[in-house]
Amino acid sequence: MTDLYLIRHGLAGERGTYENDDQRPLTKEGDRKTCQVASRLKKLGLQFDLILTSPLTRARQTADILKATGLSSQCSELAALAPDGNIQDWIIWYNTWSSTEGKSLALVGHQPDLGNWAELLIWGTVKESLIVKKAGIIGITLPATGSPLGNSQLFWLTPPKFLLG
Amino acid sequence: MTDLYLIRHGLAGERGTYENDDQRPLTKEGDRKTCQVASRLKKLGLQFDLILTSPLTRARQTADILKATGLSSQCSELAALAPDGNIQDWIIWYNTWSSTEGKSLALVGHQPDLGNWAELLIWGTVKESLIVKKAGIIGITLPATGSPLGNSQLFWLTPPKFLLG
Repeated sequence: MTDLYLIRHGLAGERGTYENDDQRPLTKEGDRKTCQVASRLKKLGLQFDLILTSPLTRARQTADILKATGLSSQCSELAALAPDGNIQDWIIWYNTWSSTEGKSLALVGHQPDLGNWAELLIWGTVKESLIVKKAGIIGITLPATGSPLGNSQLFWLTPPKFLLG
Repeated sequence: MTDLYLIRHGLAGERGTYENDDQRPLTKEGDRKTCQVASRLKKLGLQFDLILTSPLTRARQTADILKATGLSSQCSELAALAPDGNIQDWIIWYNTWSSTEGKSLALVGHQPDLGNWAELLIWGTVKESLIVKKAGIIGITLPATGSPLGNSQLFWLTPPKFLLG
């Protein structure tokens, strides 16, 4: 079994304020709240064998904050985590990783993709029925064997407001 | 729209230790942790217009703790929240309540029923894919009109360990 944590990037600059949407950074407020969320996760005892992130600036910055907070010593980019990425590309990556590597994995990415991927893992279909706030977290247990699609279980979904209080 | 909070009763005495399973009370530890969860919910600013509970002792005690913590001034029992209760019975109750009453409702009950009801509200089918721990919470937004079955959204799912830290 693998514990998978899907983490949405923090609050970023407004769409259209940057020529290239991929380069929109976290705002000061986004940076602050993401740091608070990361500290809280650390205090809760979470530790990731790897943080895998979308290459977009706002996701990369979120992943860097998680790593700097001590939640993982490893951080890599995966193109499939960019907006409209295909979960099948990640599944191929995951099948290789999970056969040899650790058992706790964080993905940093975007909406609606993270919510859609979560639904595909848990129920096998997408209904866009999960509300995933910026810097929010989804926790899913993937099965030890067989495809995780439609065979995983949800153990956590939280917006930052219920995490920080 | 209604914010619906499904709350599982706290840790109770072991099955078989009471002649009538309905009368198993919370253990000392169950009482303690349920009080901690209730205090945390209060601190997070939650307020329920009504707490509706299964009539079984362990659920009733959990509901009483929530009420005593100031999370609601109203608490009632509903037979449909007992184990193996039918969600349709609750829907009939809810349709009447929601037409005249408040917009924030807590249900206190049992597994696997609470997780199954949540899946019916969100996805319209049961896969037993939600992990709901004792004194754990599911937060669901129900639509303002139309049937909530298959038309609701999940905004929160947390075990006590991620709430209390």
